[in-house]
Amino acid sequence: MAKLLSGKEVTASLNEEIRKKTELLTAHHITPKLGIIRIGEREDDISYERGATKRCETLGVSYEKFLLPEDASEEMVLNTIAQVNEADDIHGVLLFRPLPRHLDENKIINALAVEKDIDGITDRSMASVFLGKQTGFAPCTPSACMKILDHYGIDCSGKKAVVIGRSPVVGKPAAMMLLQKNATVTICHTKTKDMPSVVKEADIVIVAAGRAGVIGADYLRAGQTVIDVGINVNEEGKLCGDVNFADAEPVVDAITPVPGGVGSVTTSVLIEHVVDAALLKAGLAIL
Amino acid sequence: MAKLLSGKEVTASLNEEIRKKTELLTAHHITPKLGIIRIGEREDDISYERGATKRCETLGVSYEKFLLPEDASEEMVLNTIAQVNEADDIHGVLLFRPLPRHLDENKIINALAVEKDIDGITDRSMASVFLGKQTGFAPCTPSACMKILDHYGIDCSGKKAVVIGRSPVVGKPAAMMLLQKNATVTICHTKTKDMPSVVKEADIVIVAAGRAGVIGADYLRAGQTVIDVGINVNEEGKLCGDVNFADAEPVVDAITPVPGGVGSVTTSVLIEHVVDAALLKAGLAIL
Repeated sequence: MAKLLSGKEVTASLNEEIRKKTELLTAHHITPKLGIIRIGEREDDISYERGATKRCETLGVSYEKFLLPEDASEEMVLNTIAQVNEADDIHGVLLFRPLPRHLDENKIINALAVEKDIDGITDRSMASVFLGKQTGFAPCTPSACMKILDHYGIDCSGKKAVVIGRSPVVGKPAAMMLLQKNATVTICHTKTKDMPSVVKEADIVIVAAGRAGVIGADYLRAGQTVIDVGINVNEEGKLCGDVNFADAEPVVDAITPVPGGVGSVTTSVLIEHVVDAALLKAGLAIL
Repeated sequence: MAKLLSGKEVTASLNEEIRKKTELLTAHHITPKLGIIRIGEREDDISYERGATKRCETLGVSYEKFLLPEDASEEMVLNTIAQVNEADDIHGVLLFRPLPRHLDENKIINALAVEKDIDGITDRSMASVFLGKQTGFAPCTPSACMKILDHYGIDCSGKKAVVIGRSPVVGKPAAMMLLQKNATVTICHTKTKDMPSVVKEADIVIVAAGRAGVIGADYLRAGQTVIDVGINVNEEGKLCGDVNFADAEPVVDAITPVPGGVGSVTTSVLIEHVVDAALLKAGLAIL
């Protein structure tokens, strides 16, 4: 029986931190505010947006939505970004990706002011994660993974960590963050040979494979901590992770459930970044 | 007896490519030009500079040195960078690092125009390497490692690769480049436990430990390809790598010598980047 790494518990603790920070901002007559730019009506985006705005309301953070049609021109999108960059009351911006194909994603993303880039999507934020610098914000999902490890006191130094997945949004930044924590980090992906034996060697496994239940008991052993980033819908229409939870749970030492794991923490990390951006802007914090 | 991966051979082949490109530029009345910014008189810098300018002369690339005193002010350095950015005839810039401590390295580096950043030191170039994008130039040393693997037809896909070292100049970009080649990549460093057993599992080892001869036979086995990035001076005053060559050579399948390995290739990669920057500027190539 593995210890359950509860996203709810980590989120509760993180929300306490956020509340302390918003109180400090309130004392300075500042309300932190999130700007949300969504192009089109993709269901995943709307669901994530709903979670984010609800969490904003719970935590005393305001928000403003900038909704553009699926066929918005590059100029329209760039104008919207210029608008949020200039808006004095908006501290952080969530821009949903991938953008529709007719838009130049690289150009648009990098138009965003780096100090408002709370999901670490600009090149400058990415470079900070890569270089291990304390400037800019890291992407929220891998940051949530680190929050979970930190909350449960899982020391990474000298440990073998395996990251499954090499996306710029999760896998690669997670690997860099584990490296920053002094883990010996291995990155696996679809071209990895005999992945089960590679993953079995890890003390800490971060799974961002993007496919439901693909990581089964043959990848796992006693003593491991498993963080499951996957959010999928299985054949019965239920939410599930990339790890086969029923197989994994009796084997490993600790594991995050899906739902109730990384996802919930990610939303609070996003809000924390907005609040941190507001603190930084007000000179009430330094990175 | 390992196969020797000769830097000289790779350089000769690379220089042929560079000559073809400079011929194309010459036909368009363009002489590629390298700008060198050196602050102070550090011996390592001067030695690398000498190698670079000699290689420029061999390959028909011109160069201009911008030499500043060790105590140069930030303003002086930024002015010099503005000057090379604006100089229409300078296609690529080599800026020696680390900068003297009184200078804001992050600020100065990122003042350099990304299209002239032929050693991949700016955040935007770093982000390209991290994201595996085909924009900007990668740092020359890890690029040289990849050139050696490519030249000798060493396929990385699905192979286990270990990088020893996590510096932003070599270890981290090398890891990202191996990942781009579909290797399963592990990054080791000073906090790695039982490094010999981790390194022994690798098919391809890139060593950037920064200490003379620390990688001995206990780290190595038959079947491995070893790329030694280290350049050190041993007790007898001779150049040597981070790998104990005498121990390693009888064991592994293939290895780069030091001197005569990565270093020589790095210099030609630098020149190739200058030439590529000139081609890109002239619209004679696309990335």
